[in-house]
Amino acid sequence: MAPAVKPVLALTVGDVAGVGPEVVAGALADPRVHAACRPLVVGDAASVGRWCPVHRVDGPEAAAFEPGTADVLQPGDDLVAVPLGRLSAVAGDAAVRYVRAAADLAGSGRVAGIVTAPLNKEAMHLAGHRWPGHTELLADHFGIENFSLVLTSGGLSFFHVTTHVALREACAMVTEARVGAVIDLAHRFGPAFGFDRPAIAVLGLNPHAGEGGVFGREDVDAIAPAVAAAVGRGIDARGPLPADAAVPAALAGRYRSVIAMYHDQGHVVFKSVFGDRGVNITVGLPVVRTSVDHGTAFDIAGQGLARPESMVEAILLAAALAPDWHRISA
Amino acid sequence: MAPAVKPVLALTVGDVAGVGPEVVAGALADPRVHAACRPLVVGDAASVGRWCPVHRVDGPEAAAFEPGTADVLQPGDDLVAVPLGRLSAVAGDAAVRYVRAAADLAGSGRVAGIVTAPLNKEAMHLAGHRWPGHTELLADHFGIENFSLVLTSGGLSFFHVTTHVALREACAMVTEARVGAVIDLAHRFGPAFGFDRPAIAVLGLNPHAGEGGVFGREDVDAIAPAVAAAVGRGIDARGPLPADAAVPAALAGRYRSVIAMYHDQGHVVFKSVFGDRGVNITVGLPVVRTSVDHGTAFDIAGQGLARPESMVEAILLAAALAPDWHRISA
Repeated sequence: MAPAVKPVLALTVGDVAGVGPEVVAGALADPRVHAACRPLVVGDAASVGRWCPVHRVDGPEAAAFEPGTADVLQPGDDLVAVPLGRLSAVAGDAAVRYVRAAADLAGSGRVAGIVTAPLNKEAMHLAGHRWPGHTELLADHFGIENFSLVLTSGGLSFFHVTTHVALREACAMVTEARVGAVIDLAHRFGPAFGFDRPAIAVLGLNPHAGEGGVFGREDVDAIAPAVAAAVGRGIDARGPLPADAAVPAALAGRYRSVIAMYHDQGHVVFKSVFGDRGVNITVGLPVVRTSVDHGTAFDIAGQGLARPESMVEAILLAAALAPDWHRISA
Repeated sequence: MAPAVKPVLALTVGDVAGVGPEVVAGALADPRVHAACRPLVVGDAASVGRWCPVHRVDGPEAAAFEPGTADVLQPGDDLVAVPLGRLSAVAGDAAVRYVRAAADLAGSGRVAGIVTAPLNKEAMHLAGHRWPGHTELLADHFGIENFSLVLTSGGLSFFHVTTHVALREACAMVTEARVGAVIDLAHRFGPAFGFDRPAIAVLGLNPHAGEGGVFGREDVDAIAPAVAAAVGRGIDARGPLPADAAVPAALAGRYRSVIAMYHDQGHVVFKSVFGDRGVNITVGLPVVRTSVDHGTAFDIAGQGLARPESMVEAILLAAALAPDWHRISA
């Protein structure tokens, strides 16, 4: 059931050399999107205009939210001479500008949440922006330290303790404090994702969760005490669990929330099982932010081949979460 | 089609406090097993005798290979007072003895290959044996350095560059030489596994395969040159590839051989997708060795609940590979 007042969501188009503009336009053509929210596109008007009629606005208050036409807020100048499918500092810089504009709108309450199409990290870096991705850019924008990238689909969510860092660095970042903070986030947000089972599976860092300290100490020294402390706070956390047993158990329905210690521990199996039905959501930010779980796909950009399913799912999840976000996040 | 002369395979029962004896007996009851090989059980006769009639022998030459009765070679004394489902140094020590006996039989050509039921690493350690698992025990027994643990099922195999070590240590072990050696193993053994596509997907160590060195240097400094050198040797290797894109592509049929850099990079998704239909095989040893891909399952040992499917698959794969192993391994 749609909420009484549909939330306004800012949809950023990401890197315009990639598939962002077309998946945003494609998603707007899905009737479920306008049924669930009032969408405001933030990005380059001409890039979106390749795929659907556009109505340029200078803020959400001026948007008409008419199905069939995209209301586009364009922070900055028209992008010219950005070739599709190619790395471009101009596009990388603009992608950051769109996200920051959307974040400002959300921070001031003018939109209820943000949904992001993919940006290209190399393009962003070419433009001098050093964030490894959206998640870290937004965390920095809002001055937040305890956030977590979550991949969610249907009844299962993977929360990440670390994401876009070297694996060696990820090992060093698996501390009792950080693991405890992510357990808290999973405990707080699990019910918002509609989960009927509170148990949280906390994966081990090392193979076999370290086999009692034989294969690395982090499981014993950092993860186990974080789980024990969470249990002491009344949270039904279990672990550290061997990842190659706990993840199959979660997929079989035993857990709805899984805490992965590093990017690939969650991403590889999630994308293998859920494909483009997954949504990426950042928890811990003051505003709702969801994202597609695919990249800019430069190899197919502009050909109309990119599927908007993940963007649609991201919008629907943001629309569902937005009304209660402040309460959940408090 | 079964080979003209069915190979003799040594089936080790593993830790007798676990599900090993029952999955071995359960597999012997599958008519496909006797159709494909002549099975010799290596382990405690009384433990196997709980599940099927046994015929004790002192070597493969004395075995009758009659369906319905297990030929059991028992290295060492009868095991007494080993309770099911409990850690036991006696059982851990015996499990090592069974594997060594089977390896000696295989090394001298008296059996054509080895299939191992699970042992328990903690029990083995209690008995003073420090190997992290079967794979390393066998490599040590044969004095082999370049071997790889492979998980295989149907048309897809994951070769591992590292396995039972701390994740930090695994990062340090991802060297150009080691990655190159495992690419060679995958190239040599892929066709033996029936693979019709030669392309080998070499996964990156770091998220997004390091994003060009932004998230760690191993992908650039070790994996990329190993892949380039393999291509120079005429091998169709690709990589380093972002694991969360390449593994879904492999599952969709694009690759038949995937090289994972560490245990969980391969194991988590493999066990999630293939469950107990997977087989664990060690390549690089002078003899065929396959294994179930599950553990001792102390929680259900002795209850007749353990499913023998993985053991059956392991036996069938060993039987199929044994006749050609010396040629493939040469």
